[in-house]
Amino acid sequence: MKVNGKPYRTIWLADDGRSVEIIDQTQFPFAFETVTLNSMADAAHAIKVMQVRGAPLIGATAAYGVALAMNADPSDASLHAACSSLLETRPTAVNLRWALDRARKTLIQVAPEARTDAAYAFAAEICDEDIGINMAIGMNGMEIIAEIARRKKPGEPVNILTHCNAGWLATVDWGTATAPIYMSHDNGLPVHVWVDETRPRNQGAFLTAWELGHHGVPHTVIADNAGGHLMQHGQVDLVITGTDRTTATGDVCNKIGTYLKALAANDCGVPFYVALPSPTIDFSLSDGVREIPIEERGGEEVSHITGQTANGTIETISIVAKGSPVANPAFDVTPASLVTGLITERGVLSANRQAIAGAFPERVRLSA
Amino acid sequence: MKVNGKPYRTIWLADDGRSVEIIDQTQFPFAFETVTLNSMADAAHAIKVMQVRGAPLIGATAAYGVALAMNADPSDASLHAACSSLLETRPTAVNLRWALDRARKTLIQVAPEARTDAAYAFAAEICDEDIGINMAIGMNGMEIIAEIARRKKPGEPVNILTHCNAGWLATVDWGTATAPIYMSHDNGLPVHVWVDETRPRNQGAFLTAWELGHHGVPHTVIADNAGGHLMQHGQVDLVITGTDRTTATGDVCNKIGTYLKALAANDCGVPFYVALPSPTIDFSLSDGVREIPIEERGGEEVSHITGQTANGTIETISIVAKGSPVANPAFDVTPASLVTGLITERGVLSANRQAIAGAFPERVRLSA
Repeated sequence: MKVNGKPYRTIWLADDGRSVEIIDQTQFPFAFETVTLNSMADAAHAIKVMQVRGAPLIGATAAYGVALAMNADPSDASLHAACSSLLETRPTAVNLRWALDRARKTLIQVAPEARTDAAYAFAAEICDEDIGINMAIGMNGMEIIAEIARRKKPGEPVNILTHCNAGWLATVDWGTATAPIYMSHDNGLPVHVWVDETRPRNQGAFLTAWELGHHGVPHTVIADNAGGHLMQHGQVDLVITGTDRTTATGDVCNKIGTYLKALAANDCGVPFYVALPSPTIDFSLSDGVREIPIEERGGEEVSHITGQTANGTIETISIVAKGSPVANPAFDVTPASLVTGLITERGVLSANRQAIAGAFPERVRLSA
Repeated sequence: MKVNGKPYRTIWLADDGRSVEIIDQTQFPFAFETVTLNSMADAAHAIKVMQVRGAPLIGATAAYGVALAMNADPSDASLHAACSSLLETRPTAVNLRWALDRARKTLIQVAPEARTDAAYAFAAEICDEDIGINMAIGMNGMEIIAEIARRKKPGEPVNILTHCNAGWLATVDWGTATAPIYMSHDNGLPVHVWVDETRPRNQGAFLTAWELGHHGVPHTVIADNAGGHLMQHGQVDLVITGTDRTTATGDVCNKIGTYLKALAANDCGVPFYVALPSPTIDFSLSDGVREIPIEERGGEEVSHITGQTANGTIETISIVAKGSPVANPAFDVTPASLVTGLITERGVLSANRQAIAGAFPERVRLSA
């Protein structure tokens, strides 16, 4: 997507064909800088300090980390060491483990003298796969937006509410929840996005607003509290969010507060869609509220916030009465009954076991 | 309620029997200071710059402003001038107009030589009336909490979620939504309060948390997004919020985001109560969502926030991507169907026209 008018991915091969460039996301939204990764250690550092974030982008960065390691030393020992080091950067990231397991299995079968080129090809493939999935989600979601647009006066925008950042910055390009939005916008379907601030980490106000603004998509930032009121008054045509994990039955785990928007959408007759790359479906789960453990994060994410003063310096301030305890559950689960549809790379599915299994029969067999 | 272990009201007569003291709420939660009002101009200033806030407290401060004016000059002209000046401080505050109209009508009938004492007596009466209403709400609400406590193991706290600040700082004492909480706590009923941060102005994290902390009530601050998740997991026994305006049919207008909590409470089987001093019932309205105009406030309340840095200075920082537009509706309406009960000074009422009219027949007659 575009930054300052120029198309970008979040990760790309540098002109030398060996080093790798990324957007440094730790500076957002106050500065836009790119960083060059020259070694496996650089890639591990980028993942660890969250210069890159979002499951697909972490996986892609790890794959390029392996390629950088092979470029320095293509031996079996180096391959195993690189995969181990990269996995340690964020041990709980499912996508990271998946990308590294795949890299190791693929590359160990290649002779060391051909391994470096194979590793770069593998990393590029991981990136292209992510983009392919997101574009398919975009096409499928765009049909929903186009259908709503047909019921409007010509030129009147379709109002879409989104929560958190399931945007291109969390993927290699396009994003998941944002893919239908960017694709509609690029194809001349007028859209306007209500961007939930997304407390406590403000990914909406920091990242989604930044993305949409740079790509030229009309949008408005709102407090998380405002969405229900807007839906009551006909100002939201549909909701599209992302998901971290979805059960085989269509219960959706996503950023804390998603459930509240799904309830309001349901109460106000607003369709509620979840953009869903199929790797995030967990076929071993069937009751999201009971089975998905919710991460409790540090209270300082609620009690402190970082931003920019009028003179441009970055400050962290306390915004809770001194001495008051804070709780910070990071995700919630939206029951399938509140979900209008799951926008996947294989089409828009009803949020139930039969529809999901029907679209991904090979995954069901694997988990059986 | 208590501050640093000492009982306070938000406004009280100084030891000299003529000047008036208030808590300066512009410094919250970073400093606790009191201010002495020596003249009507001081009182007008306190209302205007929001050293005092909350409808009941604004009314009480205005009444003391009239008393201070009469102390300086008890003539008819001075009375009229004082009422006019005080009304101009916040022209849209309904309680302010009501208190001043009542002051003028009462005091104009008193001879100038007796008017100063009468004005102080009137202001004291306004304060006592507010406290009386809040204590009655507290007693009625405490019965609901006690009933829930009886179903728990001894000593296990009743978990109450509240949104925004309908606390003692917005009234003369006790607050409205907080009155049942303080009364339960003071009577040995164990309570724990989930305090919604309440973006964008953070009245929960700034004011409610401060109040509860100083009075010794166990509480935990959460992002507004978290309440639904807590309700899904049985961690909330009831919700109590305040209201700015309630229709004759029981639709509740309150701080933006209240509707989302009511939806979650309804979905999770958690009782949702609104603490309601009867002056906030508007008998001329019967459809809250359609009839109550919602104030759209400045976007800088969302895009900027003020807090304290680690070294103690107060800073205002920007927390939205540069150039992104912001919308800021300040209130929303919770339909009566989502309200379990209205905790009024005359008992806990069902949120419907018949129950409300039955409890306040004289108000119905007045509006007919």
